[in-house]
Amino acid sequence: TLIRVVVAGAYGRMGREVLKTVWQAEDMVLVGAVDVRGEGQDVGPLWGAPEVGVTLQGELDKVLAETRPDVMVDFTTPDVVAENIKTALHHGVRPVVGTTGMSSRELEEIRALAGELKLGCVIAPNFAIGAVLMIRFAAEAARYLPHVEIIELHHDQKLDAPSGTAIKTAEVVAAARGDFRQGLPTEVEKIPGARGGSFDGGIRIHSVRLPGLVAHQEVIFGGLGQTLSIRHDSISRESFMPGVLLAIRRVMHLEGVVYGLENLLFE
Amino acid sequence: TLIRVVVAGAYGRMGREVLKTVWQAEDMVLVGAVDVRGEGQDVGPLWGAPEVGVTLQGELDKVLAETRPDVMVDFTTPDVVAENIKTALHHGVRPVVGTTGMSSRELEEIRALAGELKLGCVIAPNFAIGAVLMIRFAAEAARYLPHVEIIELHHDQKLDAPSGTAIKTAEVVAAARGDFRQGLPTEVEKIPGARGGSFDGGIRIHSVRLPGLVAHQEVIFGGLGQTLSIRHDSISRESFMPGVLLAIRRVMHLEGVVYGLENLLFE
Amino acid sequence: TLIRVVVAGAYGRMGREVLKTVWQAEDMVLVGAVDVRGEGQDVGPLWGAPEVGVTLQGELDKVLAETRPDVMVDFTTPDVVAENIKTALHHGVRPVVGTTGMSSRELEEIRALAGELKLGCVIAPNFAIGAVLMIRFAAEAARYLPHVEIIELHHDQKLDAPSGTAIKTAEVVAAARGDFRQGLPTEVEKIPGARGGSFDGGIRIHSVRLPGLVAHQEVIFGGLGQTLSIRHDSISRESFMPGVLLAIRRVMHLEGVVYGLENLLFE
Amino acid sequence: TLIRVVVAGAYGRMGREVLKTVWQAEDMVLVGAVDVRGEGQDVGPLWGAPEVGVTLQGELDKVLAETRPDVMVDFTTPDVVAENIKTALHHGVRPVVGTTGMSSRELEEIRALAGELKLGCVIAPNFAIGAVLMIRFAAEAARYLPHVEIIELHHDQKLDAPSGTAIKTAEVVAAARGDFRQGLPTEVEKIPGARGGSFDGGIRIHSVRLPGLVAHQEVIFGGLGQTLSIRHDSISRESFMPGVLLAIRRVMHLEGVVYGLENLLFE
Repeated sequence: TLIRVVVAGAYGRMGREVLKTVWQAEDMVLVGAVDVRGEGQDVGPLWGAPEVGVTLQGELDKVLAETRPDVMVDFTTPDVVAENIKTALHHGVRPVVGTTGMSSRELEEIRALAGELKLGCVIAPNFAIGAVLMIRFAAEAARYLPHVEIIELHHDQKLDAPSGTAIKTAEVVAAARGDFRQGLPTEVEKIPGARGGSFDGGIRIHSVRLPGLVAHQEVIFGGLGQTLSIRHDSISRESFMPGVLLAIRRVMHLEGVVYGLENLLFE
Repeated sequence: TLIRVVVAGAYGRMGREVLKTVWQAEDMVLVGAVDVRGEGQDVGPLWGAPEVGVTLQGELDKVLAETRPDVMVDFTTPDVVAENIKTALHHGVRPVVGTTGMSSRELEEIRALAGELKLGCVIAPNFAIGAVLMIRFAAEAARYLPHVEIIELHHDQKLDAPSGTAIKTAEVVAAARGDFRQGLPTEVEKIPGARGGSFDGGIRIHSVRLPGLVAHQEVIFGGLGQTLSIRHDSISRESFMPGVLLAIRRVMHLEGVVYGLENLLFE
Repeated sequence: TLIRVVVAGAYGRMGREVLKTVWQAEDMVLVGAVDVRGEGQDVGPLWGAPEVGVTLQGELDKVLAETRPDVMVDFTTPDVVAENIKTALHHGVRPVVGTTGMSSRELEEIRALAGELKLGCVIAPNFAIGAVLMIRFAAEAARYLPHVEIIELHHDQKLDAPSGTAIKTAEVVAAARGDFRQGLPTEVEKIPGARGGSFDGGIRIHSVRLPGLVAHQEVIFGGLGQTLSIRHDSISRESFMPGVLLAIRRVMHLEGVVYGLENLLFE
Repeated sequence: TLIRVVVAGAYGRMGREVLKTVWQAEDMVLVGAVDVRGEGQDVGPLWGAPEVGVTLQGELDKVLAETRPDVMVDFTTPDVVAENIKTALHHGVRPVVGTTGMSSRELEEIRALAGELKLGCVIAPNFAIGAVLMIRFAAEAARYLPHVEIIELHHDQKLDAPSGTAIKTAEVVAAARGDFRQGLPTEVEKIPGARGGSFDGGIRIHSVRLPGLVAHQEVIFGGLGQTLSIRHDSISRESFMPGVLLAIRRVMHLEGVVYGLENLLFE
């Protein structure tokens, strides 16, 4: 039987990508789309397709009651996401959530509610399977090849450096290799900053910003006579869709909250 | 207490590298070196050092009896390796073996003997930790990103293609992803061979041969909007030494044979 | 003064990109858009913008007469492009043409006409500046590092291999290095095709096809103890726009036909 | 006829590499070897070969008088190199010099002397053809794709950052692109140094230091929808030999001093 899916935040850029992806998945059926924008429009044109017979509606509660879905995918905003999740759970609908910014208190309430109702719920700040694998492999490699540097490369409109993914990677690497410390104290920078940003234990992070790049990261491990490099290149929002599909399929068999795609991949 | 090590096949190129590595390891002491070549020479000059007081000797049995080592590292030849291992085990010495080419019957006898004597023994066709990690990560990634191609790059004196490591990688990837099949049947090669060699399930392997290269491999996984690449670059025999050191340390706490460095890394 | 531009083939995917690019260029003004599709529509929405006051029209001749542009950019189809170019030249308008597929006879007629009228005309099969630079550098490098292999990587919907750019690169490399021949005659393929497709003089071309890739190529030169790699990554049609802008600006100062962007870059 | 070559500084690491290279070159003959170290030894064993009948001698003047070479290759030290060059020129011998550290006054004297004697002389701080090509291509690319960042990667025993080659590259790029300025003023570093060292016009240089690396550099150019990368990987002193051979062959046809390998490659 097909998995019935409602998308919340359907009008946004991620929402449209999810609509299209669910529509094309052979084991799913798109039964509803919720957004405060575009009410009454057919959703097909949102991803460049003809009309598909599903229209945008404003009230999540009403859509869930009428369409009785199995899963709600939420890519909305920090101010409404927690409420959306609770609404879904009360309807017996399993949430798959990519919206970030929930408070730890909200997260605790959701954990309690999902556990009590014995319903699955997946919340993930990053649905790109490739990025999650990269971080996972980096943690494993660091146990055997503890010397590591990180190069992340993004389009030149990204203003902050380093990227969140680079910092997350450095955190798991630092944890995996314990109190290892790399780099010689006698190193000299002839141009300040040449050696990059220094994270715990001397892990260096280098941030490149150029037009023509999208979102890329390379983690390089060095050992005697060899290097091991793990690189993720993401070129579009599509890169999150395999992770979303995986979560929709897996949430059907879960009880309670799973936080982080990595905990679905490597349980 | 220090681990006492004898090196068999000490005069060869890998043997010299092991001599140097054991000599420099703070938790080990080099107590003997065996080879039919160079008998009577001090081993220091073999790795460009001054004399170190250990001389090459021709008879393994005699050296083991006199020096009573904990571990024998063997980088000899297929015709003598099995006998060397049995000799070591009978002396209560744990073998760490990089020599390839043993028959499965010889391997069975050694498994039985090591088990009976409750002595550790590590046999590994590839001691490069980076390569072992690459293959391991490739197998994990293939479960989630099943589209994969392999590019291996070696110096232009390597006559066979693809490399053993590339084939091994393709084997573990094919096993991990099951009966997945990649590639469109309507593909057309305008120049025969452009799409590389085809392994099970359509995994393509590309072999580059150029001067200036040593031994490199990249495994590229493709998914919606993203790629994940795992690359190993090896530039010298030194790249095997961390794996040898790890095996020497771990074999002290093993009982029976462990085959393949991966089974030491991810037990 | 601003360069007045008309776009022919404006409704197509490349045409829309050119409309947007010309619209945003500070030294240009978009004065007309021609296509048999979408007649009467404002062009703004074609690239996701609000209306801009330029509407699609069906007849090139009429648009050129009314708008009196300096330059016509043509991304139409092989069956109409030659006629379009002649029409433009007769109106005193300089053509910048990305449409491929003209016959050599058509090209000769256009060369003659542009020369006679003393009008510039740029025709280029590839407007991606990065790709043109890559090919140019490959030709130069091959004179000093003649051992070379080419790896091209494209999305898995591309059915032919190798790519046109890879073949073009191999051609210029082969020409630059003369009768050099690489590769050992004793090489053995354990899997047929592993060593790639063989071009003149033993240049090997390897074609990778994976989802998540767009259009990429790496040219690797090997010499004693070193390699030199030149890589171009293209992720969108936008990559052609800097070349189109350059051609629009330069065509104003030309007389006669320049064929190939490389002849604008390195005259 | 063969080119007769003497090597000065023959006992050093670069000198030995040159001895071996000249010995193997089919169009050259090694006629003498000069060094204050190892006097009287046959030079063959210096590169792991049997004796070749050429012995190390201490006095350059005497060796030049006796062997009457065409070319002297000098990899000595800053304190003797200028004197060696003058001695060679007075013997009618053309110098090919890789030793760095000459004063500009010494260089002027040598220019004058070589010009007067109508003898060729090549002096080059970097004989790696691949590196010279990389820098040359970077300068050309910067004219069309002015956004650029440099990543250089070296073994972790290199204490200074960035490398001389990276700084040289940034200099030629900055010169080629004029007063272009890249980078947004609103960029924020969450970890200081993450964006690398800043060179003229906002060119960022990132220095990676890891075991297992040797000497590598990548120059990345970004434009709309594309990147162009030029990378040089050097793994041994051998990488300088093709440049040395080229200089020996070319110096025979020169008059006066050519400074920098690039001026031999692209005259």
